[in-house]
Amino acid sequence: MRRLANEIDLAELVALFGGELAGRQPVRIRRLASLASAQADDLSFLSAARHRSAATRTQAGAVVVSRDLLDALPPGVGAIVVENPYAHFARIARWFEARASQRSNRVGIHPTATVSSEAKLGARVFVGAHAVVSADAIIGDDVMIEAQCFIGDGAQIGAGTRLHPAVRVLDDCTLGERCIVHSGTVIGSDGFGFAQDQGHWEKIPQLGAVRIGNDVEIGANCTIDRGALDDTEIDDGCKLDNLIQIAHNVRIGKHSALAGCVGVAGSAVIGSRCMIGGGAGILGHLQICDDVVVSAMSLVTRSIRKPGFYTGVFPMMPNAGWERAAATVRQLPGLRDRVRALEQAMRNAETGSNLGPDEPDSGE
Amino acid sequence: MRRLANEIDLAELVALFGGELAGRQPVRIRRLASLASAQADDLSFLSAARHRSAATRTQAGAVVVSRDLLDALPPGVGAIVVENPYAHFARIARWFEARASQRSNRVGIHPTATVSSEAKLGARVFVGAHAVVSADAIIGDDVMIEAQCFIGDGAQIGAGTRLHPAVRVLDDCTLGERCIVHSGTVIGSDGFGFAQDQGHWEKIPQLGAVRIGNDVEIGANCTIDRGALDDTEIDDGCKLDNLIQIAHNVRIGKHSALAGCVGVAGSAVIGSRCMIGGGAGILGHLQICDDVVVSAMSLVTRSIRKPGFYTGVFPMMPNAGWERAAATVRQLPGLRDRVRALEQAMRNAETGSNLGPDEPDSGE
Amino acid sequence: MRRLANEIDLAELVALFGGELAGRQPVRIRRLASLASAQADDLSFLSAARHRSAATRTQAGAVVVSRDLLDALPPGVGAIVVENPYAHFARIARWFEARASQRSNRVGIHPTATVSSEAKLGARVFVGAHAVVSADAIIGDDVMIEAQCFIGDGAQIGAGTRLHPAVRVLDDCTLGERCIVHSGTVIGSDGFGFAQDQGHWEKIPQLGAVRIGNDVEIGANCTIDRGALDDTEIDDGCKLDNLIQIAHNVRIGKHSALAGCVGVAGSAVIGSRCMIGGGAGILGHLQICDDVVVSAMSLVTRSIRKPGFYTGVFPMMPNAGWERAAATVRQLPGLRDRVRALEQAMRNAETGSNLGPDEPDSGE
Repeated sequence: MRRLANEIDLAELVALFGGELAGRQPVRIRRLASLASAQADDLSFLSAARHRSAATRTQAGAVVVSRDLLDALPPGVGAIVVENPYAHFARIARWFEARASQRSNRVGIHPTATVSSEAKLGARVFVGAHAVVSADAIIGDDVMIEAQCFIGDGAQIGAGTRLHPAVRVLDDCTLGERCIVHSGTVIGSDGFGFAQDQGHWEKIPQLGAVRIGNDVEIGANCTIDRGALDDTEIDDGCKLDNLIQIAHNVRIGKHSALAGCVGVAGSAVIGSRCMIGGGAGILGHLQICDDVVVSAMSLVTRSIRKPGFYTGVFPMMPNAGWERAAATVRQLPGLRDRVRALEQAMRNAETGSNLGPDEPDSGE
Repeated sequence: MRRLANEIDLAELVALFGGELAGRQPVRIRRLASLASAQADDLSFLSAARHRSAATRTQAGAVVVSRDLLDALPPGVGAIVVENPYAHFARIARWFEARASQRSNRVGIHPTATVSSEAKLGARVFVGAHAVVSADAIIGDDVMIEAQCFIGDGAQIGAGTRLHPAVRVLDDCTLGERCIVHSGTVIGSDGFGFAQDQGHWEKIPQLGAVRIGNDVEIGANCTIDRGALDDTEIDDGCKLDNLIQIAHNVRIGKHSALAGCVGVAGSAVIGSRCMIGGGAGILGHLQICDDVVVSAMSLVTRSIRKPGFYTGVFPMMPNAGWERAAATVRQLPGLRDRVRALEQAMRNAETGSNLGPDEPDSGE
Repeated sequence: MRRLANEIDLAELVALFGGELAGRQPVRIRRLASLASAQADDLSFLSAARHRSAATRTQAGAVVVSRDLLDALPPGVGAIVVENPYAHFARIARWFEARASQRSNRVGIHPTATVSSEAKLGARVFVGAHAVVSADAIIGDDVMIEAQCFIGDGAQIGAGTRLHPAVRVLDDCTLGERCIVHSGTVIGSDGFGFAQDQGHWEKIPQLGAVRIGNDVEIGANCTIDRGALDDTEIDDGCKLDNLIQIAHNVRIGKHSALAGCVGVAGSAVIGSRCMIGGGAGILGHLQICDDVVVSAMSLVTRSIRKPGFYTGVFPMMPNAGWERAAATVRQLPGLRDRVRALEQAMRNAETGSNLGPDEPDSGE
């Protein structure tokens, strides 16, 4: 990252963000950095005991740290002692980001942008080069629409939301306040709706829209389809990583997080505070309750009604071993039947009888 | 969706699209909506017995329905009785869409578009803001090239095709008539072709193109690579969802449908009327015959020569159970051998002999 | 592909690229084509014995071939005999590509491009229509930035690199020399970093960048996230296919190749000369050593410290068989316990004792 033009004293950061000073003072900071790469004018953080050894070797000028890990820091390092070092560092980092980059403070409409006279723009809006804002769009205060974005007819962007370059928000879709959307993401493409009719596919027009709450962040090159009739909905505080596909009429509850490459099929409903691992899939027309964690690359094939941690992925192994294991997987039902037959034979041998009752399979 | 400026009588919709009036008359319609959200001036549809209970509670003014489900509607609801309610509703919905949205009727070249004087444009073409149409491109009648699209040198777009904002059709690629392509999709990126040469990768130029038939729809942020020498081909009537990867020299037959996040590797051939589930993968240089259905997130590793329904995905379970199941999967070949040994021991015990023939494993 | 305006003699190609003439002479070439589609003025290649039968039927004017397969060619076909026909053909193909297409030789700034006066541009740079080059960007000699690309503040593009239409290289990211990036790819989107704080997600600003080496090729619609504090790094000679997700702080060694739809989670480290199959996933904070091959759609869940070929994917089967196999997979731990019990019972029966020691499971 870039260094600040003017350094700041550690004590000033404590005055701004709280925490308690410890270790060497004064320390003057010009950059944030990881424990491993930090130098004398850098501030770093230590958030977990497993990074203790990296901390003992750090060359950072100062470290944000919890009280119980303070002893891990080498002598001569300054410290800000707080309860949640990661969240505290996050707040400091946002302040640094705003100082180091000019880009977050831009205002005005670039001369090459195409903004409809029928769009309504709030105060302090930025519209970048070659961006398009269509008729009847409503843009809130302090919105940043970066270069090459496209805002469709009647779309609404809430106050303080930032669209990175080349985001597309298509007709009638709505984003709440303080959202962030990364480059290449498409909000409001048609849902995948076709009726089979005499050997070909008849398109079902997708007449709903997409409605996104406040404080939602969506990564790069995602696709969020508009609903068929009702809207696709993503509730407040959700965080989506890159290359995620959200199909029509999906609903996602508050503060859920989806990692990269997840696909959610049509009309699936995901609860609040769920965490979906990278590359996982969720079939359509099912429900996932609140507080569910799904492992990476697992496929949810039926509704989940109990909070918990769910997985379904074939374990990785050296390929030769996999070849044998995969061949046996195909034979599994036969193998189970053979074990059952052996059990019966064993019982018969023990009792000397051929008439013992068949014991049911465990787990069936 | 938006309401029509002027309402339409149910009887007029029957005059336009067929079907038989039933239930309360007259009903005046201004919008289409789902059974659950419809109000008094909305038209909805009931296409399957499993939605019967939603139908009994609907507040819709009228419903498109098949004769055998007509009794599910509450009294005082109008009805259009048809054989295939879903396909019928689709046709009505397209008519509504054209009325409710201005965007489908636009014509002309936006002043900020860059259209080569060496491109050939048909009648009633629309080219949106900041779009590029390159030299030697041939654009058919009634084509809509929305804002920020890019049409490469020598590309051809058939009559009536619509490219949503920010679609890229690169040099020499061809789309048929009445196609729809959604935002962010790239048609004609280089195939992934490299020859290994003395420890590094030597690029194989990708000199083929992409050829897409008529009535094909392609979702958002897909990538369709150009062929290495011959073309990549997608035949008439195919429907592709979002975030799909089609590698070089793939061929897909007529009316096949691929759900979101599918990846098809190089030179794979997919037959007609296939349906590939979301997130499924298809390895390269293999054939899938007509009328094959592949489940979501399954990997096709060899050719499929028999129509049918194929699956390969690890079942999802609570994570603790998965840990145990996955550990056992690694031991499966050993477990199979142990069952075989038990069977042999049992036979020996029963016959009193150690010399019985080894029985072959079932399924091998 | 397009034919050359002027044909070239086979002997001239040998003079330019080496190899030995054989078969019919002279042959005049205007195009490159596959063995199956080649015609009399086309050059093709034969690189492996499995294509021998296609070679015997080819109508090509000439074929690049190794000495041991020369006899597969029909009489009357010209030949260039070389050691590595595929790599040799690749070099000839690049020469053809440069001749057949005008697009590789363009220079200059399109009048609709937006280039900051504070950007530094090398010699013979091309900037296409509606592209943006921001302040403090440094663009090397012979760089092609095609239409609708976006280059952020302080980004650096090395000499000879080509960005296809609509590539985004965001602030402070760096590409080396002779790279190729395909349409729709985003380099430098924010990593997915959030701290959980009192029931909601606190954004961690992503202050690192992306650093890409020389001779790297990246496919279409990929996303490469910037690092949280340090940079995300892709080393020289790597080849990435389409729709690939690289999370923050990932590091990939030299000459590794990733097929389409791969997802790599945060802080994973991939060695040199690795090959990752399409749709595979790699979890975060793990290491993969050099020379590892991962099969398509397999998930790497822990570090791999030994070169080799690794797989983890459920085998595909007809759906009815899968239903049975999947049900048995859930019962596997129980099945294993039952086999163990049978073995114990068998030992007891053989020894007449109930006190034999429990034999440990093989493979545990």
